[in-house]
Amino acid sequence: MAAMSASAEEIVNEFLARVVVDVDAACELVADDIEYDNVPAGKSVGPDGVKAVFAMMSNGVEEMEFVVHRQLAVGDTVMNERTDRFRYGSSTWVDLPVAGLFVVGDDGKITLWRDYFDLATFMNQVPSG
Amino acid sequence: MAAMSASAEEIVNEFLARVVVDVDAACELVADDIEYDNVPAGKSVGPDGVKAVFAMMSNGVEEMEFVVHRQLAVGDTVMNERTDRFRYGSSTWVDLPVAGLFVVGDDGKITLWRDYFDLATFMNQVPSG
Repeated sequence: MAAMSASAEEIVNEFLARVVVDVDAACELVADDIEYDNVPAGKSVGPDGVKAVFAMMSNGVEEMEFVVHRQLAVGDTVMNERTDRFRYGSSTWVDLPVAGLFVVGDDGKITLWRDYFDLATFMNQVPSG
Repeated sequence: MAAMSASAEEIVNEFLARVVVDVDAACELVADDIEYDNVPAGKSVGPDGVKAVFAMMSNGVEEMEFVVHRQLAVGDTVMNERTDRFRYGSSTWVDLPVAGLFVVGDDGKITLWRDYFDLATFMNQVPSG
């Protein structure tokens, strides 16, 4: 994919497809100073920030799926509603409703990723131990 | 405003302007079977459902402001990110980051309003007593 010629929505779609399987490959699509804001949990900055949060989130997770239900794109901005799904063990899926915002810079790199969700909805479902 | 000729975004803007001051006037803009989904708190249906939730939410609230930071509209669908603000007493403001989704029917009435937010962020700020 030639990022320079792709639309903001195409870049976000590619990012979301990558991030659930390979966060390093996904981070090829983010700006050096990307702000990654998990609204109830806090902000991190840069590809290393994204990778650190994903390392934490994927503790014990065998598989991830981000299911996009609706997505709007206007100019450099994309918003979507999703169910982010995390599999623990062989068959325990944790489903988290999320609304996401993405802003893509002129160079085709994502500069802002902000997710709105209810933290307790996630935490209360994560299997203990 | 002639609802039939207004865009989905104009209707949502008018709804949001009204709902913080007069929920009855706002509900003139919603469908009889509107689904109002506060994701972490649950769904209600119809104008009476919206009014009942607002009666509960505005318990002790002297003033409300919904500040829209970004808003995208495509076709019948609008998404925005907001800070919903609630004033208790003379000067205690509770600020809640929210991502909202609205779908507007062919007749210009809002059929779906879904807000994503962190419930604890709200509850932990509400003054007790």
